[in-house]
Amino acid sequence: MSSFPKGFTSCSINAGIKDDTLDFTIIYSEVRAAAAAMFTKNQFCGAPIVIGKKHVADGYLQAIAVNSKNANVATGEKGLQDAVKVTEVVAQELSINATDVLPSSTGVIGVPLPVEKIISAVPGLKQQLTADGLEQSAKAIMTTDTYPKFRTRKIGNVTISAMAKGSGMIEPNMATMLSYILTDAKIEPADLQSMLKKAVDVSFNSVSVDGDTSTSDTVAMLANGLAGSVDLKEFEKALTEICIELAKEIARDGEGATKLVEVQVSGADTDLVAKKIGKSIVNSPLVKTAIFGEDPNWGRIMSTIGNSEDKIDTSSVSVAFNEMYVFKDGKPTEDKRAELEEYLKTKEVLIKISLGHGTGSATVWGCDLSYDYVKINGEYTT
Amino acid sequence: MSSFPKGFTSCSINAGIKDDTLDFTIIYSEVRAAAAAMFTKNQFCGAPIVIGKKHVADGYLQAIAVNSKNANVATGEKGLQDAVKVTEVVAQELSINATDVLPSSTGVIGVPLPVEKIISAVPGLKQQLTADGLEQSAKAIMTTDTYPKFRTRKIGNVTISAMAKGSGMIEPNMATMLSYILTDAKIEPADLQSMLKKAVDVSFNSVSVDGDTSTSDTVAMLANGLAGSVDLKEFEKALTEICIELAKEIARDGEGATKLVEVQVSGADTDLVAKKIGKSIVNSPLVKTAIFGEDPNWGRIMSTIGNSEDKIDTSSVSVAFNEMYVFKDGKPTEDKRAELEEYLKTKEVLIKISLGHGTGSATVWGCDLSYDYVKINGEYTT
Repeated sequence: MSSFPKGFTSCSINAGIKDDTLDFTIIYSEVRAAAAAMFTKNQFCGAPIVIGKKHVADGYLQAIAVNSKNANVATGEKGLQDAVKVTEVVAQELSINATDVLPSSTGVIGVPLPVEKIISAVPGLKQQLTADGLEQSAKAIMTTDTYPKFRTRKIGNVTISAMAKGSGMIEPNMATMLSYILTDAKIEPADLQSMLKKAVDVSFNSVSVDGDTSTSDTVAMLANGLAGSVDLKEFEKALTEICIELAKEIARDGEGATKLVEVQVSGADTDLVAKKIGKSIVNSPLVKTAIFGEDPNWGRIMSTIGNSEDKIDTSSVSVAFNEMYVFKDGKPTEDKRAELEEYLKTKEVLIKISLGHGTGSATVWGCDLSYDYVKINGEYTT
Repeated sequence: MSSFPKGFTSCSINAGIKDDTLDFTIIYSEVRAAAAAMFTKNQFCGAPIVIGKKHVADGYLQAIAVNSKNANVATGEKGLQDAVKVTEVVAQELSINATDVLPSSTGVIGVPLPVEKIISAVPGLKQQLTADGLEQSAKAIMTTDTYPKFRTRKIGNVTISAMAKGSGMIEPNMATMLSYILTDAKIEPADLQSMLKKAVDVSFNSVSVDGDTSTSDTVAMLANGLAGSVDLKEFEKALTEICIELAKEIARDGEGATKLVEVQVSGADTDLVAKKIGKSIVNSPLVKTAIFGEDPNWGRIMSTIGNSEDKIDTSSVSVAFNEMYVFKDGKPTEDKRAELEEYLKTKEVLIKISLGHGTGSATVWGCDLSYDYVKINGEYTT
């Protein structure tokens, strides 16, 4: 499960950035790989995002260098210099070009990156590269995640491996939290970018933990071609499935989460309207706390739908939990609070909303809002 | 402090809607009063909103009838009939027209209003009307509020009295939570509406507890003219001040709140951009939990500013807590975390943001996100 596609290796270490857990990983392809990436739309994006965009612009990368525990964001000119230094020291160790290294950082914002710690940790790492490093790399990129998130899938001769981290400050906007996807398939950069964008839209871009788009969101995909060509349709299907699986893991492991919430919206004028309404449900603190408390207070869903910027015909709205309708065609059904309370004991809550307008639909994922979310985020830096 | 303007009286009772606390109040003017009102923009607005809009349309009202503990929202055709019945029984008791009664309801959504309890409680209430009822009425409209919110101010001969309730599901959108403002000044309905709109925009519409616009938001103002005319400029100033004071009380007493947060945004392209950014700060769960935890994690403010839909010049942004700059002209200042941690022990946190673009500005209020918010909302209906 945790081995890489052909030609990919990684190593993961503790560079002492904050504590003694894994905080730095290098992922390496023995040949230059076609590459595609998507980044956060946050205007205070991290220094590594600025550098990474330049490095992936030609459609090729050969390594990814990621540190956790510090985001290198809001760190001014020095932050940019630090991100470049990391790519340079990694490139030197691997005997590749610095412009073929994608830098990534995740962690606290506004604290200078302790770049000297990384610089002194890199020499000698090439010898530690291993083809079994997927799980370790997935661990090294974690912040408040409680477990590493990774998947591997075979399509004929070809393998895709992917890892992701999430937890808090999670509402990817046309981008994603950190996720790295590796394959030995031979795919052109333009095809890679187009498949990645489609997969990300229905997976990482459909997840929210707390509605706060991070400054560091990055998904990058490398295809080194060492296993030859692949049926692109089959590949895209597998890629999309992996991305959705990882996205759901991110929601399930949201900071303090006790339940995974899936919201299916149909009957909207457009897919975008459906997605916006689904996101507003998984982001409503009132809905999230009710789900945490297993409180059958479905009226909060109606209120959230009613706040849509888009025109809703309230007389044609229906809402169900799993198969249990609480509101049908604009009217409440007979009181389902007792059954609903029972259903809410589940670990995976499914809410289905039909707007009765059009053919637009979307599925989004989120989690509940618990005491632990408050605890984790009230004590993050201190 | 708690007596009404000339000609206004009220009474407050327990009608047994949910428990044994005050849950129903009638506010009455002995003559028909010029009236203005603003309501929620939520598309699933409550039945009383639908009826109330009709009743205030001619610019006159004579009574307000409010119940707490049940919002009469998402209750279908029966909800509308119930709201009409309440206005009818109150009108009969007071010997006025039902179309001069503004109905209001606040509480749980999606549960039928126990209208029979109200109908049987109303007869005889006229005898209980008192000019000292402001505080009791402010208590009767509370849901999860921890204290009643009311103000009285004199402008010459004229008096303004106002009450409000807030606590959760609070992000008024061109409207407000429940607030009723009474005056004996003689003011035309059109002037009343225009002054009210301006005052509400800089007060109730500048507050957010949890970003969820309620289905029941209502602010209504009655001017019965019994104290004669007033300098409109002076009156508007006093009205605006009262609304801001009540709005701040609502933020301070937000569900589970331990701190009042004021965000002043300046240097924006427009006032609207400034207000949107201010609201995004007071609505960010990450910022709110950090303030609750007194954690000097100011990077979360940068991330939230960066998510603005409007273009920001990140190199000209400055952020200060009170007078303490943590980020100035696009760069972090020297580390202020220790001083900031000390400052965050205050009960009123002031965050000043300058965007360095233009002349748009806004002040908004909110509160922190605590364990108690989760507790209150995880256990609301059960």
